[in-house]
Amino acid sequence: MTQPRFDQSGKGSNPGPVTSAEESFGSKLVRRWEGSLFLCVGLDAQADRLPSGLSHLGPEEGLFEFNRGIIEATAPYAAAFKPNLAFYEQSGPPGLTALRRTGDWLRSRHPQIPILIDAKRGDLASTNEAYATAVFSYYGADATTVQPFLGAESLAPFLNRADKGVFVLCRTSNPGGGELQNLSVGPAAEPLYLHIARLAAGPEWNRQGNVGLVAGATYPQELGLIREAAPGLPLLIPGIGTQGGDLEAVLTNGLDADGAGVLINASRSIIYASSGPDWASAAGLEAARLATALREGRDRVMEARRKYT
Amino acid sequence: MTQPRFDQSGKGSNPGPVTSAEESFGSKLVRRWEGSLFLCVGLDAQADRLPSGLSHLGPEEGLFEFNRGIIEATAPYAAAFKPNLAFYEQSGPPGLTALRRTGDWLRSRHPQIPILIDAKRGDLASTNEAYATAVFSYYGADATTVQPFLGAESLAPFLNRADKGVFVLCRTSNPGGGELQNLSVGPAAEPLYLHIARLAAGPEWNRQGNVGLVAGATYPQELGLIREAAPGLPLLIPGIGTQGGDLEAVLTNGLDADGAGVLINASRSIIYASSGPDWASAAGLEAARLATALREGRDRVMEARRKYT
Repeated sequence: MTQPRFDQSGKGSNPGPVTSAEESFGSKLVRRWEGSLFLCVGLDAQADRLPSGLSHLGPEEGLFEFNRGIIEATAPYAAAFKPNLAFYEQSGPPGLTALRRTGDWLRSRHPQIPILIDAKRGDLASTNEAYATAVFSYYGADATTVQPFLGAESLAPFLNRADKGVFVLCRTSNPGGGELQNLSVGPAAEPLYLHIARLAAGPEWNRQGNVGLVAGATYPQELGLIREAAPGLPLLIPGIGTQGGDLEAVLTNGLDADGAGVLINASRSIIYASSGPDWASAAGLEAARLATALREGRDRVMEARRKYT
Repeated sequence: MTQPRFDQSGKGSNPGPVTSAEESFGSKLVRRWEGSLFLCVGLDAQADRLPSGLSHLGPEEGLFEFNRGIIEATAPYAAAFKPNLAFYEQSGPPGLTALRRTGDWLRSRHPQIPILIDAKRGDLASTNEAYATAVFSYYGADATTVQPFLGAESLAPFLNRADKGVFVLCRTSNPGGGELQNLSVGPAAEPLYLHIARLAAGPEWNRQGNVGLVAGATYPQELGLIREAAPGLPLLIPGIGTQGGDLEAVLTNGLDADGAGVLINASRSIIYASSGPDWASAAGLEAARLATALREGRDRVMEARRKYT
């Protein structure tokens, strides 16, 4: 049996099955990688941190106009946009309407850039149907993040969506992430996060070739072990920027054999680059700087790999 | 150091610290247990499953009126009400407005019955601040459910809320829940779910005495081990009714030393007891039947414990 898998060649030859007329997440992502784009722009806008020029608009208009400004300034440098649902949810329906309008805007103006909604959902299968409907149908995401704790059986409503990307939490970037994730499990006594990486890459979880992993930039060594355990899976890597992860170490450990396979996320360091009237252009400059650093870093890593292997 | 803990005596002598003028979750819950109420009514309404008499109202009015009917019919038998956020989220802002109105209704008409919003959230600490704001401040929950995967450090915005209940997923009721939860971990080679039960009951996670556990009715033996590992923690036990868990086995294994400590949830078997015009009264009858079965079952279990110990 040939298992469908995420295209990691950067050539777009096998972006995975597509179940709707719209282009699949895998196909969109591979085309961004072909353009040497690896930066994921985290749209984590908060209603109480809007620039002063937008704060009079109220949460729905304010959050939407802020996102629109950030998107227009950063789109040329973005491999993907990643709103975290929490920041919209805390403002109630107006915040969530702003998120939906952000998705509509992205799909109509930048249909080539995938939208990854960071929701970290995970419930029983029957309940996950409702969460998958919310994230994919209501908010129009191309991909999302999920909790592994209830197992593959519970995640079927996500995993069955061949056209959508499903990033499974593996080793998170927070200081206390290791409390459970580093426990050694099973007869092999390997850390839980590596066990999850192997499961996620295996035929039960990844039967549609649409699975990726979330692995924090703040633990580059562990990132390297995850890459070894799941050589073909796209990695969503948060934790550079404000959280302090080291770009060079992240690329060395996270890039796949073809010099792609990573979505490296920065949120606050881009969207709050300036709180003055230049907030949008400052976000664009920071995104450009990071995107260039990632492309040049990737080239250095691949050059070094060619030399030493 | 005396660690504050959940009151399990059923006497309400130490319901935990209260940080606001409103009564804490722990105090409300203990008073329901004092009334021999153990049934948690799951308000998992779906806009596409509303009774025909309500389906013309649209999702916001329809979901709210359905919940209001279920609440009024079942309140005398309910230890708590538990809406699962997923079912509201899938309808977008109208669904979420219905949830907020349901919370407002409950607080004004039945302030003695705690509202447990089943959200299963779990993200970085800074992001969990936003989720805690949503669930506690925006939707007005007295308690919620959380994912353990990112560790206690990430859960601080929930765990620090002494006035709110925080139910940590431990052993979930779904058929595939054991895929990760039954992995043996650490030097003691105990299953992950038991390791989590011990952590949750310990001084780092439960420093405010507000932690509970989610343990499925479909695995009564494992429920018994969880009760041993966490003798003083309230257990939220889903999986009776539609999922088929056995009431007697659940009570035998889940009740604490004082014959309390459990919130046994039924959702679909109550709220969809009838799809005809008698949907509300049918829900009331089913809730009454279950509440009686739980009270009588509790009495039998405690009688048997008295005889055999």
